[in-house]
Amino acid sequence: MNINNEILKLDWKREPYGLYEPIEYTLAAGGKRVRPQLAMIACQLFGGNEEDVLPAALALEVFHNFTLLHDDVMDKADVRRGRPTVHMKWNENTAILSGDQMLIEAYKLLSGVPADKLSEVLRLFNKMATEICEGQQYDVDFESQSHVTIDEYLNMIRLKTSVLLATALQIGAYVAGADTPTQEALYQFGIAVGLAFQIQDDILDVWGDPKTFGKAVGGDISRNKKTFVYLEAMRRLGDEANTLESWYSQVLEDNTEKIAAVKAIFEQLRVREACEAVVAQYTQTALEILDTLPQNTATDQLRQLANKLTTRKD
Amino acid sequence: MNINNEILKLDWKREPYGLYEPIEYTLAAGGKRVRPQLAMIACQLFGGNEEDVLPAALALEVFHNFTLLHDDVMDKADVRRGRPTVHMKWNENTAILSGDQMLIEAYKLLSGVPADKLSEVLRLFNKMATEICEGQQYDVDFESQSHVTIDEYLNMIRLKTSVLLATALQIGAYVAGADTPTQEALYQFGIAVGLAFQIQDDILDVWGDPKTFGKAVGGDISRNKKTFVYLEAMRRLGDEANTLESWYSQVLEDNTEKIAAVKAIFEQLRVREACEAVVAQYTQTALEILDTLPQNTATDQLRQLANKLTTRKD
Repeated sequence: MNINNEILKLDWKREPYGLYEPIEYTLAAGGKRVRPQLAMIACQLFGGNEEDVLPAALALEVFHNFTLLHDDVMDKADVRRGRPTVHMKWNENTAILSGDQMLIEAYKLLSGVPADKLSEVLRLFNKMATEICEGQQYDVDFESQSHVTIDEYLNMIRLKTSVLLATALQIGAYVAGADTPTQEALYQFGIAVGLAFQIQDDILDVWGDPKTFGKAVGGDISRNKKTFVYLEAMRRLGDEANTLESWYSQVLEDNTEKIAAVKAIFEQLRVREACEAVVAQYTQTALEILDTLPQNTATDQLRQLANKLTTRKD
Repeated sequence: MNINNEILKLDWKREPYGLYEPIEYTLAAGGKRVRPQLAMIACQLFGGNEEDVLPAALALEVFHNFTLLHDDVMDKADVRRGRPTVHMKWNENTAILSGDQMLIEAYKLLSGVPADKLSEVLRLFNKMATEICEGQQYDVDFESQSHVTIDEYLNMIRLKTSVLLATALQIGAYVAGADTPTQEALYQFGIAVGLAFQIQDDILDVWGDPKTFGKAVGGDISRNKKTFVYLEAMRRLGDEANTLESWYSQVLEDNTEKIAAVKAIFEQLRVREACEAVVAQYTQTALEILDTLPQNTATDQLRQLANKLTTRKD
């Protein structure tokens, strides 16, 4: 089953068009479809029926896109996946309301899992959805918080990024009938991959190749975003953090000089190597968890996906 | 069981405070708690266990307040229930994110209904939630739509206002074990009460007593809102609608003259009497449905509530 086709098969040609067209537009933009894939592979890993997990897989993708839609409003982001964001193409109210409807649609899709699995799938999904909102709130809080520890940052990205991957895997495993410890192992695999994935994203923001990296290189530096790279640099600087902090207190029109200066500080401190080591370590943790699970084509796919997500250059 | 106390007992003292404090603030503002009351009374009407319906009753109230929170952002409303709206007290991003979390919390509460009822309750809830978003979208569409028919307007307020009352009643009846035709009857009672309630609201906007009416009298006229009163006037005017339309094309700082002029047109056309007759008719429809149901203290309460909601002056 091609999950991308299943997503594109969802029918949004309904009135009122002003509500449903932005949903169709958002879901048609593509993306890697990682979350529904993870749910499908996890189900397959334990010999489950893919029809049983499909409703949850679709729900996870619709939910993920709902979070992107509302996050883009909150971040005032103009572009997503190379196209204008919904609030730019339509307006902010449309983005809010169509986003709300997407969240409801996610729950409608979720209700399609086998009836005897619904209660637990709903519980896992609700827990994940709450944690994502909490992660987003911490992300917002950190902007105005003068000091953020690396542990606080890791907790934030665990909530904002990892739990969705982890829950996709857990739901897939649960629907296929895997026992609780096995579900938990797969969940932890998802957490580790998610942390590695996000830190790799932070690294690419500084050292990515502008030709292949989807976003503008240096964007996190321009917006004074306290990423893992920044926090690791601050940790290494200790009492000498003033120069970096002073750059991060500035909001500039032209960020060329700032990005170069901050990047030079990072490189002098050998922060890149340190961050890459952390990514490698989380990836290793994830792969070791996989070794404890049944070995079949699904495990191979997860191994490949973990490597791809954590070593990606774009 | 006092439903207001149950709502206030919900605990929101959780980190991140920036996410949960606005939820607590919203739910502490009071309101009539009509929707959870309807669910509880409907359950009682058929001899159900109130503990069984309570999770759904709370979910309906949290959901209702979520819609108010996001609607206030979209309408740029400054005040709700005599207090600053969430986006005024905090900011717009907080209102979006805490609203999202409220919607998720509604689903978490809903999951607490007896396991064998969950699937159907979720289906009814999802259908209602979708219809409310659709109603809100039609309401937005009507602002820029030059011609709106009375049927289109009735459909919009059915979606935006009635289905939530109707679904609260249906869920209560379903949880108590009422059969499908009985659930449907109670649903239709809710639809009729909701229509009467909303048209009464449109009447009060023009002819309410400023001393007792919660909102500013004439607000719908100032904002050129195509209410039932306006549409009934337009219908009666036929080809002579120009004067009224020309008033409704104006956005003014001081609306005193405009409100007086529009009100004079309404009164000359005897629109108030016509609208009140429609309210009375929907109320009558609602009460006749009640007569077909078992008669007990719950039916009496619904009768009182229907009369109160449709003859209210504030």
